[in-house]
Amino acid sequence: MSHVFGIEESTVLPLLERLSGELPRDELESRFARATWTGIAEPGDRMAGLVVESLGAAAALRAIVERTDADRLLAALKDAGEQSLTREELVAAGERWQPRLKSSAAIIALRQAVRYTVQLRVPGDESWPVSFGDLGPHAPLALWVRGNDSTLATLGRSIALVGARAATGYGEHVTMEASAGLVDRGYTIVSGAAYGIDGMAHRAALASSGQTVAFLAGGVDRFYPSGHDALLTRIVAEGAVVSELPCGSAPTKWRFLQRNRLIAAAGLATVVLEAGWRSGSLNTAGHAATLGRPLGAVPGPVTSAASAGCHRLVREFEATLVTSAQEMAELAPLSPISDGPSGEGDTAERTRVIDALSIRAPRSVDDIAARSGLSVTGVQAVLAVLELDGRATENDRGWLTRVRKPGP
Amino acid sequence: MSHVFGIEESTVLPLLERLSGELPRDELESRFARATWTGIAEPGDRMAGLVVESLGAAAALRAIVERTDADRLLAALKDAGEQSLTREELVAAGERWQPRLKSSAAIIALRQAVRYTVQLRVPGDESWPVSFGDLGPHAPLALWVRGNDSTLATLGRSIALVGARAATGYGEHVTMEASAGLVDRGYTIVSGAAYGIDGMAHRAALASSGQTVAFLAGGVDRFYPSGHDALLTRIVAEGAVVSELPCGSAPTKWRFLQRNRLIAAAGLATVVLEAGWRSGSLNTAGHAATLGRPLGAVPGPVTSAASAGCHRLVREFEATLVTSAQEMAELAPLSPISDGPSGEGDTAERTRVIDALSIRAPRSVDDIAARSGLSVTGVQAVLAVLELDGRATENDRGWLTRVRKPGP
Repeated sequence: MSHVFGIEESTVLPLLERLSGELPRDELESRFARATWTGIAEPGDRMAGLVVESLGAAAALRAIVERTDADRLLAALKDAGEQSLTREELVAAGERWQPRLKSSAAIIALRQAVRYTVQLRVPGDESWPVSFGDLGPHAPLALWVRGNDSTLATLGRSIALVGARAATGYGEHVTMEASAGLVDRGYTIVSGAAYGIDGMAHRAALASSGQTVAFLAGGVDRFYPSGHDALLTRIVAEGAVVSELPCGSAPTKWRFLQRNRLIAAAGLATVVLEAGWRSGSLNTAGHAATLGRPLGAVPGPVTSAASAGCHRLVREFEATLVTSAQEMAELAPLSPISDGPSGEGDTAERTRVIDALSIRAPRSVDDIAARSGLSVTGVQAVLAVLELDGRATENDRGWLTRVRKPGP
Repeated sequence: MSHVFGIEESTVLPLLERLSGELPRDELESRFARATWTGIAEPGDRMAGLVVESLGAAAALRAIVERTDADRLLAALKDAGEQSLTREELVAAGERWQPRLKSSAAIIALRQAVRYTVQLRVPGDESWPVSFGDLGPHAPLALWVRGNDSTLATLGRSIALVGARAATGYGEHVTMEASAGLVDRGYTIVSGAAYGIDGMAHRAALASSGQTVAFLAGGVDRFYPSGHDALLTRIVAEGAVVSELPCGSAPTKWRFLQRNRLIAAAGLATVVLEAGWRSGSLNTAGHAATLGRPLGAVPGPVTSAASAGCHRLVREFEATLVTSAQEMAELAPLSPISDGPSGEGDTAERTRVIDALSIRAPRSVDDIAARSGLSVTGVQAVLAVLELDGRATENDRGWLTRVRKPGP
């Protein structure tokens, strides 16, 4: 009988096909290796990233399983062009990884993933977030995704909305406006799954029929916090819940901090809506800044401890003060599709009609006329031109703006 | 009988002595000329500034009174090194100034000033704000001061607190904390006299026994707004009310805008506490920025129109976001007096005692012990050292920090 890393092929391969679709055997084997790696190395483990990147996930896993001698492994890495690792680092990493090399654990995680209809995504998959490349050797080795793969694919036009669990009514109100306003402008929302700002960001995105992605610090089979069970179930149905940890993994302090790097790396920009002086969301902001992502912070009353972290970001970390969804969108503008005349040459009427259109909410001509302050016949004439230019589109519920991602 | 600019000497000179003290005749004549100029030229009149600066106030006034030919005047200016004026500018300025050349108006303003115990201050006087030199030819030609000359002399360590008339409870609360906190750190407060933020800045400074200066857009004999009669009367008693316009002058839109330049020039820094999107306080902020003064803005709820101007200053005009008196003070730090060991070498105890001391509010040893978290005997020992170093001083009500202005 054939084996994959010491496990019967007949056990492993069908599970992998359920998680990733029908693929060649070596591809399934490579995916199984990546899936296993997510349970061996803690998130952000630079050594794991370098070894997997240099040798390939399967060869790297085989080396660990077969307890390949450190000198031989070092030589293989050097052959692959990886010169930055020392023998000591390699030995220490092996000692971290060995205790977790239990084939039973990997199989349990895979079975649990199948039970929860989880998808396994690896670098190179169509929906894999290209922006994770910016994380270098700290990039996740694979993603476990519950929900819509199509939502994951929209992360390239997402903005991260993060903030304190202990949000105030003010913070939740501003988050609601921000999330709905960004969805309306064609952005996907990214956040964690905490109470307070995170939860409100998702809720408002869902309420606006928008795309939203929640990154968890533990396995996607167990929702944390449990009070957000219903919310996360809705996100699975209409968006995506994602983790780099296999099913069954508990969220830990370290994993929360590393999860924050994924949120920061996923978004074109990160906006902190409310944060105490030492809030965890400042950690996400720090990742965003390190990655060179635009960072926004929403001000609030100086008398509110829940805004102190936002003010600190503006004062000490050069965050841009943002007060509205429009200003957040300006941190990372999406270009409207335009094969025809450029936006700069627009007539006042065209600009007003475009302003009155939404990317996600179809609107009737009457509605657009009311929003733009133009006549119904005037709006009809302008919409016809915009449609020809590929800048507006009509479906059975009304008119929409067409957008595209910022180009290469 | 001798005359000063066509007015009997016996009328003019005693009035000037009442306003400026006993001085040589030519000095009184020069002061009379400056006093008259403040009624002839509108605030900020660059031409008046250049002519008075080049020829001297008296000679410049004489030239206008005697309707000196423009070509001769131009020649005299060139002799004095002033080459930037054209004949056309000079003729146009003369046409502005001539209709206001009424000796009766000048005398009425002087008499009114004497009636209100106003002091006339001119460049070179000990209490003249040195920082007004930064205004160049737009500097005021003289100041009319009601109140304490000693307060005027403290403008060199002042911070301007400005903001909207239509302040919210939040804005007034933050202004109160800011003003009291700055007074406690040894700053003088500068502001206008409007309702809202301006009024609160003065009130809180007075309540903290601080120095405060109100700049008016009209004559200091008529308080505007009249609802601030009682407040301005208190400022006259404990601080100073100042204008560059002679008594009897009405506040106009232009004069408010020009008054703002004096507030910005007087303060080491300007802080906007609340301001609508088009608030007049943004004009003061603009003057501060033009003068290179540090500019601070206090954030507030993004849902509050009264904070929109502050957020705009941070976003568009590079104002520093400030959330407390401490952060405002950091815009323009005052150096504590230190002839002994420098602050850097302080022991933890010394630092804590200094933190517990105020510049204006004398504190008992018990109070300082409570604030610093040190024992009474410990505080006494540290105070003795600080007094030797000239960094703390005791009066009959308690202990105070000693400060000095920044600079050489």
